[in-house]
Amino acid sequence: MSDNKKAIVLVSGGLDSATILAMANKENYECYAVSFEYGQRHESELQASERVVAALGAKEHKRIKIDFGSIGGSALTDASIAVPETPTEGIPVTYVPARNTVFLSYALGYAEVIGAHDIFIGVNAVDYSGYPDCRPEFIEAFEKMANLATKAGVEGHPFKIHTPLIAMTKAEIIQIGTKLGVDYAMTVSCYSADNEGRACGKCDSCRLRREGFEKAGISDLTQYQ
Amino acid sequence: MSDNKKAIVLVSGGLDSATILAMANKENYECYAVSFEYGQRHESELQASERVVAALGAKEHKRIKIDFGSIGGSALTDASIAVPETPTEGIPVTYVPARNTVFLSYALGYAEVIGAHDIFIGVNAVDYSGYPDCRPEFIEAFEKMANLATKAGVEGHPFKIHTPLIAMTKAEIIQIGTKLGVDYAMTVSCYSADNEGRACGKCDSCRLRREGFEKAGISDLTQYQ
Repeated sequence: MSDNKKAIVLVSGGLDSATILAMANKENYECYAVSFEYGQRHESELQASERVVAALGAKEHKRIKIDFGSIGGSALTDASIAVPETPTEGIPVTYVPARNTVFLSYALGYAEVIGAHDIFIGVNAVDYSGYPDCRPEFIEAFEKMANLATKAGVEGHPFKIHTPLIAMTKAEIIQIGTKLGVDYAMTVSCYSADNEGRACGKCDSCRLRREGFEKAGISDLTQYQ
Repeated sequence: MSDNKKAIVLVSGGLDSATILAMANKENYECYAVSFEYGQRHESELQASERVVAALGAKEHKRIKIDFGSIGGSALTDASIAVPETPTEGIPVTYVPARNTVFLSYALGYAEVIGAHDIFIGVNAVDYSGYPDCRPEFIEAFEKMANLATKAGVEGHPFKIHTPLIAMTKAEIIQIGTKLGVDYAMTVSCYSADNEGRACGKCDSCRLRREGFEKAGISDLTQYQ
């Protein structure tokens, strides 16, 4: 392993972020996992993040509390907005305003403090839910901003935002992760998972996940309610 | 007042942010003030933000808790790092990694939820402490990123980050605020203010503030310890 190959890896407990943690480990990064507690309905997702980190390994695992609840405006943080069970046109109500911007901003601060210059995030612009902050143009703009915002960036140690999944289909992600030994049964993707982490099987996220396993030709061990 | 002229105004309780709240009010924005509680040493600064909002007026005042403490790395959030009493070379230890990036990210999420497209932040690149995230190139990059990150940006309602103070000297800021009726005695700029909000008179922030009053020819009513 080369010197100072530290990486921040954003781990939600879902399928995509488990895959990127496995990929970053495979590339010999010393991984600092970060999970965000942001008033999402699925506490079970955070428990999944702990299982994922325990199984795949990381130097550290930080859980950072984010006060999105007081802002509201999304079905994922506001109990008064229902999670839809059928695909919708345009950007859906599960969109959390500025979510990835806030997540990456924290990751950036944490990276700067520990002297990491690499941040992994499992965004995906193919089989995704239409969120604007999952697109390559957003990631590029964030990276550019990050290198103007920080002491490290200004002093010539630029940050790189790694998005290895951004152009993959869900099926491709599952195939790669399976080769790297990821046990997807421990991950939770569902927007409405119950306390035991069992999926609803109906939401957008469940639909994309199930189709991914089908197309990958890999059996889906997801536990449904 | 025109329709939908809502603005988010970042109010720290310091001299600069009090001035921008007065300026945004003067421009007839309906102001939504936001203050961040981020484990800074000076709780008295947050009390100052409440006095400032009460005196100058805002539609709402949100106080958002930010978990910087678990990241550390700055004299302003980590009690084990001393606040310097003499000017230092380069970016000082009072720099909080990614602070304005995180602040603006929350402001962006909040703006999107309430349907505001204007965000005011009192950054200043003249009489400032050398923080990279106070420079115009950072603000421009953030704005560009914000309009790629969000539903509103993508749907053709771009955000504007207003930085009316960015090119002003501290003396000019004090002159403008004084004309707009800002009572600076209620603001706290000091990095090491005591519980009553009295300034140390020694830190970088105190020095810039005192020089600003001198150059503006306005009497400095700051309470010193």
